[in-house]
Amino acid sequence: MKIVLVGATGDIGKAVVTELGRRHAVVPAGRNSGEIVDIRSLDSVRALLDRVGPVDAIVSTAGAVHFGPFENMGPEEFAIGLNDKLMGQVNLVIAGRSVLVDGASITLTSGILSEHPIRSGCSASMVNGAIEAFVRAVAIELPRGIRINAVSPNLLLESKDRYGSFFPGFKPVPGADVALAYLRSVEGGQTGQTYRVF
Amino acid sequence: MKIVLVGATGDIGKAVVTELGRRHAVVPAGRNSGEIVDIRSLDSVRALLDRVGPVDAIVSTAGAVHFGPFENMGPEEFAIGLNDKLMGQVNLVIAGRSVLVDGASITLTSGILSEHPIRSGCSASMVNGAIEAFVRAVAIELPRGIRINAVSPNLLLESKDRYGSFFPGFKPVPGADVALAYLRSVEGGQTGQTYRVF
Repeated sequence: MKIVLVGATGDIGKAVVTELGRRHAVVPAGRNSGEIVDIRSLDSVRALLDRVGPVDAIVSTAGAVHFGPFENMGPEEFAIGLNDKLMGQVNLVIAGRSVLVDGASITLTSGILSEHPIRSGCSASMVNGAIEAFVRAVAIELPRGIRINAVSPNLLLESKDRYGSFFPGFKPVPGADVALAYLRSVEGGQTGQTYRVF
Repeated sequence: MKIVLVGATGDIGKAVVTELGRRHAVVPAGRNSGEIVDIRSLDSVRALLDRVGPVDAIVSTAGAVHFGPFENMGPEEFAIGLNDKLMGQVNLVIAGRSVLVDGASITLTSGILSEHPIRSGCSASMVNGAIEAFVRAVAIELPRGIRINAVSPNLLLESKDRYGSFFPGFKPVPGADVALAYLRSVEGGQTGQTYRVF
């Protein structure tokens, strides 16, 4: 399959490139490398999909959110995650619905915080919960056999040095295990699911 | 208790006024009646809470989302629900965290579509999932014993004539039953919960 992977240089993205690249043609994309795209802009996403041509799958491991104490947060801090990780990934679905091949798949990324909150993470929890519910719902409206799932990873072993202090008592998972969930979404038959890796 | 109820004239709000009004002082608020507020604006929400003075509880049964086929939806349609039902209710928490009395409660409204999608409802599903995950997360960061919960109602019997055709096979619930869940949140001791009424 030809698969466009948005967020290819992040910790999750790198593991997914390795796993999906074993037998698929992966087109890496991101804000700063590979095929350049800013997912916050629907026009930028449409331009990306035009450039790379018909694909069998879109995989997203992209999306920023604000982390910080709730007491210091206002609407502007919440807007970061809503515009980037949430609507950025939704833009991939909006653009993809008309240009993906029949029976294609879309795989988005949520995260463990939708179910297991941490301090300073309420925006991430909000966005992840939104993604999982959106995936469940839009799955019943996608045309031409197009499927959609989400992967909800725990903290990655590869990210532990940078973010571990935010996740006390969380047992990090290897990126390779997380990457399997993306493979399961791309090559499997289900739709509307969230695959938890924790 | 003194309770400010935002969205007092909707089908859910009317039932909540009846139930909570039995032994609490309910201050009705909304876009067009009672204490006027536009929850999309944090300034408007702050002004409301300044006007009504210290309250023991904020209850929200307010918030608009766009309903329609996904194939016709772009970022603008999703923005309606994100700005109104989602961030509108989050604005109540942002404004409330500093002016609510110690041990106060906040109760927001999500809805059954976070878990059980319908056609034309993917924006509502997204927003409801976001609210439930946000409530779970922000509960661990609220100061001074302030609690927060969500109520997730099914279609109300009182709303069946208008919206029933969107909810094939859903068994509507009486507004009075839904109102009990708000009472449970206000007078109960839990926080971070979603009370499902379906």
